[in-house]
Amino acid sequence: MTATTHTRAAAEVTALPATRPSRVVVEPVRPVVDGGRFPAKATVDEPVVVEADVFADGHDQVTAALRYRRLDDGQDRGWTEVPMTSLGNDRWQARFVPDQLGRWEYTVHGWIDQFASWHHGIRAKSFDGQDVTVEYEVGRRLLSQIQADHDRDRRVLADAADALARGELGAVDQPELLAAVARHQQREPLATLAAPLPLRVERLRAQFGAWYEFFPRSTVTPARPGSPQRPGTLASAVGRLDHIAGMGFDIVYLPPIHPIGATRRKGRDNAVEAAPGDPGSPWGIGSPAGGHTAVDPDLGTIDDLVALNAACRERGLELALDIAFQCSPDHPWVSEHPTWFRHRPDGSVQYAENPPKRYQDIYPLDFESDDWRHLWLALRGVFTHWIDHGIRAFRVDNPHTKALPFWEWAITTLLDEHPDLIFLSEAFTRPRVMQRLAKVGFTQSYTYFTWRQNAWELREYFEELAGPTVDFLRPNLWPNTPDILTAELQTSGRPAFVTRAVLAATLGPSWGVYGPAFELGEHRPVRAGSEEYLHSEKYEVREWDLDQPGSLARLLGRLNRIRRNEPALRRLDTLHFHGVDNPWLLAYSKTDPAGRGDPVLVVANVDHHEAHAATVDIDWAALGLPTGARYRLVDQLGGATYEWSGRDRNHVHLSPWSVSAHVFTVSLAEPEPGSESHG
Amino acid sequence: MTATTHTRAAAEVTALPATRPSRVVVEPVRPVVDGGRFPAKATVDEPVVVEADVFADGHDQVTAALRYRRLDDGQDRGWTEVPMTSLGNDRWQARFVPDQLGRWEYTVHGWIDQFASWHHGIRAKSFDGQDVTVEYEVGRRLLSQIQADHDRDRRVLADAADALARGELGAVDQPELLAAVARHQQREPLATLAAPLPLRVERLRAQFGAWYEFFPRSTVTPARPGSPQRPGTLASAVGRLDHIAGMGFDIVYLPPIHPIGATRRKGRDNAVEAAPGDPGSPWGIGSPAGGHTAVDPDLGTIDDLVALNAACRERGLELALDIAFQCSPDHPWVSEHPTWFRHRPDGSVQYAENPPKRYQDIYPLDFESDDWRHLWLALRGVFTHWIDHGIRAFRVDNPHTKALPFWEWAITTLLDEHPDLIFLSEAFTRPRVMQRLAKVGFTQSYTYFTWRQNAWELREYFEELAGPTVDFLRPNLWPNTPDILTAELQTSGRPAFVTRAVLAATLGPSWGVYGPAFELGEHRPVRAGSEEYLHSEKYEVREWDLDQPGSLARLLGRLNRIRRNEPALRRLDTLHFHGVDNPWLLAYSKTDPAGRGDPVLVVANVDHHEAHAATVDIDWAALGLPTGARYRLVDQLGGATYEWSGRDRNHVHLSPWSVSAHVFTVSLAEPEPGSESHG
Repeated sequence: MTATTHTRAAAEVTALPATRPSRVVVEPVRPVVDGGRFPAKATVDEPVVVEADVFADGHDQVTAALRYRRLDDGQDRGWTEVPMTSLGNDRWQARFVPDQLGRWEYTVHGWIDQFASWHHGIRAKSFDGQDVTVEYEVGRRLLSQIQADHDRDRRVLADAADALARGELGAVDQPELLAAVARHQQREPLATLAAPLPLRVERLRAQFGAWYEFFPRSTVTPARPGSPQRPGTLASAVGRLDHIAGMGFDIVYLPPIHPIGATRRKGRDNAVEAAPGDPGSPWGIGSPAGGHTAVDPDLGTIDDLVALNAACRERGLELALDIAFQCSPDHPWVSEHPTWFRHRPDGSVQYAENPPKRYQDIYPLDFESDDWRHLWLALRGVFTHWIDHGIRAFRVDNPHTKALPFWEWAITTLLDEHPDLIFLSEAFTRPRVMQRLAKVGFTQSYTYFTWRQNAWELREYFEELAGPTVDFLRPNLWPNTPDILTAELQTSGRPAFVTRAVLAATLGPSWGVYGPAFELGEHRPVRAGSEEYLHSEKYEVREWDLDQPGSLARLLGRLNRIRRNEPALRRLDTLHFHGVDNPWLLAYSKTDPAGRGDPVLVVANVDHHEAHAATVDIDWAALGLPTGARYRLVDQLGGATYEWSGRDRNHVHLSPWSVSAHVFTVSLAEPEPGSESHG
Repeated sequence: MTATTHTRAAAEVTALPATRPSRVVVEPVRPVVDGGRFPAKATVDEPVVVEADVFADGHDQVTAALRYRRLDDGQDRGWTEVPMTSLGNDRWQARFVPDQLGRWEYTVHGWIDQFASWHHGIRAKSFDGQDVTVEYEVGRRLLSQIQADHDRDRRVLADAADALARGELGAVDQPELLAAVARHQQREPLATLAAPLPLRVERLRAQFGAWYEFFPRSTVTPARPGSPQRPGTLASAVGRLDHIAGMGFDIVYLPPIHPIGATRRKGRDNAVEAAPGDPGSPWGIGSPAGGHTAVDPDLGTIDDLVALNAACRERGLELALDIAFQCSPDHPWVSEHPTWFRHRPDGSVQYAENPPKRYQDIYPLDFESDDWRHLWLALRGVFTHWIDHGIRAFRVDNPHTKALPFWEWAITTLLDEHPDLIFLSEAFTRPRVMQRLAKVGFTQSYTYFTWRQNAWELREYFEELAGPTVDFLRPNLWPNTPDILTAELQTSGRPAFVTRAVLAATLGPSWGVYGPAFELGEHRPVRAGSEEYLHSEKYEVREWDLDQPGSLARLLGRLNRIRRNEPALRRLDTLHFHGVDNPWLLAYSKTDPAGRGDPVLVVANVDHHEAHAATVDIDWAALGLPTGARYRLVDQLGGATYEWSGRDRNHVHLSPWSVSAHVFTVSLAEPEPGSESHG
């Protein structure tokens, strides 16, 4: 038996690899969602920060590169490569800016860098005074072996090899040579990820936007002599848009606009029986006038909706509709598609319930129906119907009570056709379900922010949102909704509204308010212990006087203006909390990875009843600033300018009786003798 | 176009799933290593705790089951199923005890439990006083639809259905019925993991053992009148075994036993040149007498090793060899296989270096050699050689300077043939590399424990070891090694040795000492600022008087006895830290998931210079005990018994001048009037 035969036999027994594997290991760190089972979320024209662990045995130098490409319609563009930077401890980072919507993918390459290893060695040995004669020859051979495929690089490499032969080390420090080596040096055997990792690139509004919710029927036409007061319509809602645009909001979101059922309609303040004239809940969808593809005749027509959408766009606003996949007993589907609903042995349709709670005015759809294919197609068709009428943003009601695989299928196929769609998940449910909805495709998610009120619990929650879930769950922070008037807002007065708005607008790349009620500080619950509003607009028409002197409109406008001016506020992944020695205060910062604009630092007092003083211990490096310098802090909210020292803790004092937060932009101070330190 | 054709066409466009997917999601939590790329580690006859997130949309009840099986030689045994228990928040848990070594796998099944959902609903509605007539009929139909394949279950189901028809609800609470439903209820469509997750089941010593290292050549035959003192041999080392077994150690580990090179041999205290008669370092492997498969003639023969191994086994000990894949310049491979080494342009063999450091007495092997196949096979052959001579445990020297893919291939193929092998990785290197070595197959790892000395850093480090890495990295804790005499041991006297031993023996399922030097409290460094021992045994023969009165042998024996008595100390995954209001103290507990033995609670003072008092805030639930009770704590180290109250914080006082730690077993106290509370 020859040596070769012997090796082959032994190799079979012991499964020796067919070719020598790379000594380098590449392990993905982020962005990655369940090992690549779901795409990570990214935003067009916004930097994607990629991190990986890349390392090998021993002391050789390792080099890593990020490669990315867009996947459009199965036709692959080539890969673009960017070198990665070592962050220490075997972690490498690079970033790129996707320039188009749609499906992208990335991978990471790692290899032993022979030239860098040699370079590091000869430098260290020279510095140590060792004889490096032989190392010069090692370097010369390394350079000679590099195969360059264009003339200039060939010459650069040859010249450097000659210089080494003459004992001149300086030549190998030239950027031109290093570039030629990087371009042509052997990388085989190369280490890479098991498979490229998927990204879904969406538009800026997917990540970053300010939402404003209102009920069109509450854009009441005031009573005038001779003509009675009339409930608002889609047409009268146009008159509200300048007000909303003036406050700097980006997205106008309407509760469902469909015909409302009459059977078992709820009355004012959720009364079990409606009184004559009660308009019913917009979420009780469907009447003989139509279902999810129709417009409530009391609100107007589809043309009115198209006109409202156009009026929004004229003002730089975007219109979002509410999609609630449930039916009133009068919905046409109940008779047209009885198999889409569960029936009880007595022949009745199964109403919604969470035993012992009963929602007899609502019929849930049966996602496990034998006719699930037609049902799923019809539901997807609701989206395409409104997409065909120009809508691109949807707030989805209670998606956690609908089958998760339905959402994965519907959203994925819709996004593949229309990559500019936005789906906001209104799932106030358990964390795993909320997270899964985000993974299967929902663009944004309502969160527990509404109930996180202490400084420590806000910090804990946002360290999770900016950490483990940041690659797939984009929070949209709402201080209130038509369903949720928190005890904090009920009892803590204007300071609570102000602080919650500041937190939502600066912690969240996306935030929103249930508009008129928030602007006007509406705080009356339907009864003690309830989070429902008294005279909830869900069940009745409300007339709001938006010009009240106490309105928060100016504050909201200022917050949204700061958001537009500061690119750092578009990000969640750079959120960093800083030390503060008072449990009522919260200090956090955001930066833009591409360095557009200044870092933003927020210090907020979450006690709405007492003023608090504290010293803050800012991690200036986390702001991308040198430590120990002097910094200029401009409070974009309050207007004042401060100078803080990086050598000391700095002092803040925040009172609920003015605005209880600073929203600073931070830069290095010019050395200005005589400037005062204050906070 | 018919409706069916329409649907089919639409389904193609929108990629509607071929069959209706399960509404349930199953996401693995643990044990899982890199999504299944590597097997998680488990131990025969020790419970494996499996956790998964299992959930669905809406309010239906979900049920989950764990399924596991052994994979032996490609022939699959059937799956065994155990029901999982809900831990709340969508997390489910089950455990099983693998009964054989080798490769196993597990998966998790999840499904909507129609019967449980109905049962929950009818109970809640009845309690609420609602009319449940229709629900009885729903339940009857559910039971009637269940297809049972054996007679008794069919009868049980039919009887219960009849009872429901009569309006009797009690029948559906019977365990016999619930078992029949569980056995036969429809689970389709079923949710499961994308693929089963691999486990490698190893023997108890892989997870749990006490190691003792000594140099056979230091088992010196004392000088007697008429015969000179002679260095020890493998034969004389047998005389040391009773002492080691008497202290309760499990594994005896010897530094390399191979012929030692003469060329560039290091002298005493690492002198660059050896003096005549200097024995050289056992890690300078290879001489004309042989290489990695030979025994140093000064130590004896292979037969002597086999005899030593047998002598170990007679005493319940196991022998571990040190495998160091590096060569002295005199190693036979240097001339027989020149291509296994790198050569410099001047023709010399490249010695080991970490520029500017040089190790000219050591030639590293070139894992990227063109002849890598023969090299890898030869290295694997070193293991099989010693395996053939009865060795099953190997301590591997500096594996992080050898190619990682080599280890993955070698260890995997060796374990497939010999599932009882143990490989201890001596990689004091960066975390990612250390972790990767554990992932690719090393059974156990040396750790940073040696340098974690403050209470907070011990807690932080062990929360990582018992958390993110617990499924693949099994720490083996060494207070000292022949290479590492920490500053703490140099300067803090006996209390440091005692406390480090207690921490290592109770924090680590595996621990070890470099024996004689530790027992005798050897603390002299070769020079100030060095972690090397003065008169290191690496370079000279030492004679130890193990019968010194100050020896720690009794303490080590007591620690190992506690370890053998308390199954909780076999585990790392149940490690839990408790509150203590003094930064010098550490309080932690371990429990056995199968409930064998009592929980163990350790309170240790890591200040070797001062006594400290503190109150401890024990999380009794983490010990599996009811909170607010009275507990009996027996200090297995100190011997005293205490009674602690679950309603108060309890007091401890620990002084370095006695044993500065309690190692309690904890149980519920009998209500004994007059018993004292004290700590």
